[in-house]
Amino acid sequence: MITQVQTDIAGQKFQVLENDTFLRACFRQATDYTPVWLMRQAGRYLPEYCATRAQAGSFMGLATNVDFATEVTLQPLARYKLDAAILFSDILTVPDAMGLGLTFTQGEGPRFAKSVRDEAAVAELGVPDMNKLRYVFDSVSSIRRALNGRVPLIGFSGSPWTLACYMVEGAGSDDYRHVKSLMYSRPDLMHKILSINADSVALYLNEQIRAGAQAVMIFDSWGGVLADGAFQEFSMAYTARVLSQLDRSYAGAQIPRIVFTKGGGLWLKEMGGFDCDVLGLDWTMNLARARELVGGAVGGPGKALQGNIDPNVLFSSPLQIAEQVRRVLNSFGAPHTDTTQCGPTHIFNLGHGISQHTPPEHVSALVDTVHEHSRKMRSL
Amino acid sequence: MITQVQTDIAGQKFQVLENDTFLRACFRQATDYTPVWLMRQAGRYLPEYCATRAQAGSFMGLATNVDFATEVTLQPLARYKLDAAILFSDILTVPDAMGLGLTFTQGEGPRFAKSVRDEAAVAELGVPDMNKLRYVFDSVSSIRRALNGRVPLIGFSGSPWTLACYMVEGAGSDDYRHVKSLMYSRPDLMHKILSINADSVALYLNEQIRAGAQAVMIFDSWGGVLADGAFQEFSMAYTARVLSQLDRSYAGAQIPRIVFTKGGGLWLKEMGGFDCDVLGLDWTMNLARARELVGGAVGGPGKALQGNIDPNVLFSSPLQIAEQVRRVLNSFGAPHTDTTQCGPTHIFNLGHGISQHTPPEHVSALVDTVHEHSRKMRSL
Repeated sequence: MITQVQTDIAGQKFQVLENDTFLRACFRQATDYTPVWLMRQAGRYLPEYCATRAQAGSFMGLATNVDFATEVTLQPLARYKLDAAILFSDILTVPDAMGLGLTFTQGEGPRFAKSVRDEAAVAELGVPDMNKLRYVFDSVSSIRRALNGRVPLIGFSGSPWTLACYMVEGAGSDDYRHVKSLMYSRPDLMHKILSINADSVALYLNEQIRAGAQAVMIFDSWGGVLADGAFQEFSMAYTARVLSQLDRSYAGAQIPRIVFTKGGGLWLKEMGGFDCDVLGLDWTMNLARARELVGGAVGGPGKALQGNIDPNVLFSSPLQIAEQVRRVLNSFGAPHTDTTQCGPTHIFNLGHGISQHTPPEHVSALVDTVHEHSRKMRSL
Repeated sequence: MITQVQTDIAGQKFQVLENDTFLRACFRQATDYTPVWLMRQAGRYLPEYCATRAQAGSFMGLATNVDFATEVTLQPLARYKLDAAILFSDILTVPDAMGLGLTFTQGEGPRFAKSVRDEAAVAELGVPDMNKLRYVFDSVSSIRRALNGRVPLIGFSGSPWTLACYMVEGAGSDDYRHVKSLMYSRPDLMHKILSINADSVALYLNEQIRAGAQAVMIFDSWGGVLADGAFQEFSMAYTARVLSQLDRSYAGAQIPRIVFTKGGGLWLKEMGGFDCDVLGLDWTMNLARARELVGGAVGGPGKALQGNIDPNVLFSSPLQIAEQVRRVLNSFGAPHTDTTQCGPTHIFNLGHGISQHTPPEHVSALVDTVHEHSRKMRSL
């Protein structure tokens, strides 16, 4: 149904997709089983990732090197029967390209050399030259070639609001005091930052699409820290501004757009109005209720749903993991099986990134149970 | 209507309440204005608090000394026209009394000397001797006497789940990996911890009531980190177990019971089934929607609602604070004014504790605007 996804892009010959289950589920098409991938699936829980990172010297050394980025993106696919790959990169590459100076300190996460807290700092901000992000687009093309049609490749960025959180705080935060102070006391400056971020993210994702990304995802990791009202004004509106500028197809291939808002369950119905294909959910949301709110009916409009098992489930035994996976699949219920029209579909994922402390062998129990149990659910 | 709240308790003569607006709102009775108090209103943002804490030497030195605890509880009432006082203490006193050894390190928050992560550690746990918490009950009586009927005194505890988070992690956490690992891999042990916690918290709150607390509040600060399903099984069920054991009145006074779950908005309708009087809300919840879900109609059952402005609003200017306060009051809408029966009521509060960085003079803008604007809303 969506075989045109696998044609030439930007003059490069890409292999025809062997497994398009993920893309079909994104477009709410019937699939034989529920596809699965994991946020941060290429990461520190894998010893082979740690070995590559050690070679690279630093996180940014890893992320900016095309060969390393390609290598680590493919590592989890060698271990697990995942249905999609996701570009190895960071959500904060765009503000780094704006000149804020991104570094990662061991155990402390991302940090910017400059933070944006006053009128003068905001005045200096602008949409960055996309050539500064060439390393990302080169990685996308390299990974796409290395995948050789095995599974689709997802590109991504942080949302305008989530980028602003880090740009204003200068790092992660537990109270978002600085970014919220600016938002409440100088909403004009916050809107200016968010406008620049939205236009930058749209350009950035479109370049990833031209480089070979077969789906794009916007991570609103910190949307959930906002108050009702502020979320709509400072997060949703700018995610919508990104979506309105995204290419819906490239070189004959339709490109699904995924929006994930951590802690955004209370606004799910409103997010059902996004011009996107898939909504990602964290573990606090009941999937049956989400399906009812935005999943749509067979033949009607709606969003595919992605998520949402608690990553901490992976610390229990393989048998217990399988039980929790079945519980999450069952809470969504049987996806539709009508091959003539669209309907509710589920893409299995974690509700947030996988923990660095996860035993790698436990991930197989999750992935295999998703495939086995979701096939059974369709045959009942 | 509830003047019997202000009679003798435990042989002590307490002054008749001058301001029972908060208690009346808890019981969904009509009031002339919306009462307001602030979570962590006695705290580090007040220079007089910092001075007393310096005298006490440490947080626990402050909390365990009846005179100091009384002094700091009353400090915010000297500055602001607050409608309730809340016992100065910590949510973790109960596990401290179980022998886990609570300390507070500057800038890092609470830490237990022992953490509870295996069968042996769980086997050692038990409901603590309430005499070990005598300092809390003595503080309650002392504060009640010092208040001299000015406003009611709220007692409190952490919820069974929130206590368990700290008991298993040994401190705060950003991923709750240890407590969730135990929960997913050894649910039997987790249920045992939670049963002990629930019975301990119920005894503890009942003792606070006997000592003079005129309302009690259960803080489920970490309920919102749980997955749907797990929240109901590991948090809600044990909060309900506490509520079922609480004294509903003491010495002729009805004692309202408040449950606050940070990040619990998605489960608000289910929490409407709690045997309590008030539900506390954080800033992510739309108050109009909350009122519709659980606020009830005039003459019908329902919960009073408490909350929910983002504490970071207090970093903007007094004029901006006033605007945001009006916005929150308006989102709830006009409370009922029928003096012959119960109906929807709102108790103004923050959606979480006040930040230590708050400019103290900004708090007046919040408190005064709540009173002024909520009187106006009733006269429209």
